[in-house]
Amino acid sequence: MLKPVVEKVILGIDPGTNLMGYGVLKVVGTQVSLVATGIIDLRKTGDTYLKLGEIYRRVGRIIDSFLPDELAIEAPFFGANVQSMLKLGRAQGVAIAAAISRDVPISEYAPTKIKMAITGNGSASKEQVADMLRRMLHIPEEEMPKHFDATDALGAAFCHYLQMGRPEVEKGARSWKEYVNKNPDKVRK
Amino acid sequence: MLKPVVEKVILGIDPGTNLMGYGVLKVVGTQVSLVATGIIDLRKTGDTYLKLGEIYRRVGRIIDSFLPDELAIEAPFFGANVQSMLKLGRAQGVAIAAAISRDVPISEYAPTKIKMAITGNGSASKEQVADMLRRMLHIPEEEMPKHFDATDALGAAFCHYLQMGRPEVEKGARSWKEYVNKNPDKVRK
Repeated sequence: MLKPVVEKVILGIDPGTNLMGYGVLKVVGTQVSLVATGIIDLRKTGDTYLKLGEIYRRVGRIIDSFLPDELAIEAPFFGANVQSMLKLGRAQGVAIAAAISRDVPISEYAPTKIKMAITGNGSASKEQVADMLRRMLHIPEEEMPKHFDATDALGAAFCHYLQMGRPEVEKGARSWKEYVNKNPDKVRK
Repeated sequence: MLKPVVEKVILGIDPGTNLMGYGVLKVVGTQVSLVATGIIDLRKTGDTYLKLGEIYRRVGRIIDSFLPDELAIEAPFFGANVQSMLKLGRAQGVAIAAAISRDVPISEYAPTKIKMAITGNGSASKEQVADMLRRMLHIPEEEMPKHFDATDALGAAFCHYLQMGRPEVEKGARSWKEYVNKNPDKVRK
């Protein structure tokens, strides 16, 4: 019997107040590929409300362009002071609202969870995450995003992909890396 | 010569993660009156994303119902921990996005500024602010909102009204109370 092929577009977002990274993955059956990645640069938008408006419109435009089925965002690291957390929360809030207004369901992953899922090491560096993503998604070196905000966003999308429906991963391996090592035949060369 | 009468609707919001207060004021010329006030109760909405969705939709519905020309929000008091500030920021972010998506300009006022503008005392209690609003807006005792979140939101709207174009206040008085005391003839009895 023919199994139906699941096709899904996942948008990952790494929400920040100065640079907001995004990454779009397409999943077709067991194949996952990069569709687009980049950053929303907010460093030159001075006024806080203009900034929030910019985030809302840009995230909305990304959603309207790629029509993701799901949004995965990187949960923030709680280290900053209350004032910067409020700013970050507002930036996340408008990005989330852009998804809510388009009925895109949202999942959130802690940075350690994303790192663990992708590299097998919860305290992997951003470089290691980026390198693993480059290899798994077959991204040519020259097309790799320059900002870790973009690769972090891709990481969130990839983590969501691993979570959403790979029973092999859930059962047999703690991470994608482990899964790849255990199942070299399942990886597209 | 006949002066054109300025008509304006101001929406005030006191954004919180459990109770979000709102208040709508209508300004016609020099007369200001209460249109609506209330709270969005989020205490029974457990999931954080359902909560954010609820805020986005409810604030959107309030904007669509009353068509405010401007939104005034109470700036938060920085006292809580980073985790609650992020939550609060997100709640504010989705409320702000509801206004941004409808092109409603946003102004923000610190609690002390609102208290000062309404009562003449930057450290007035919430009761004093509510009482002053009740008297200035001629709200019957039985119609006064039970929650300070609602009166705080009304306060933000009223503060915005005082800021936006009352040259008498700006020039001659530090607060509405002082202005009222100095100009008893201008107050509708």
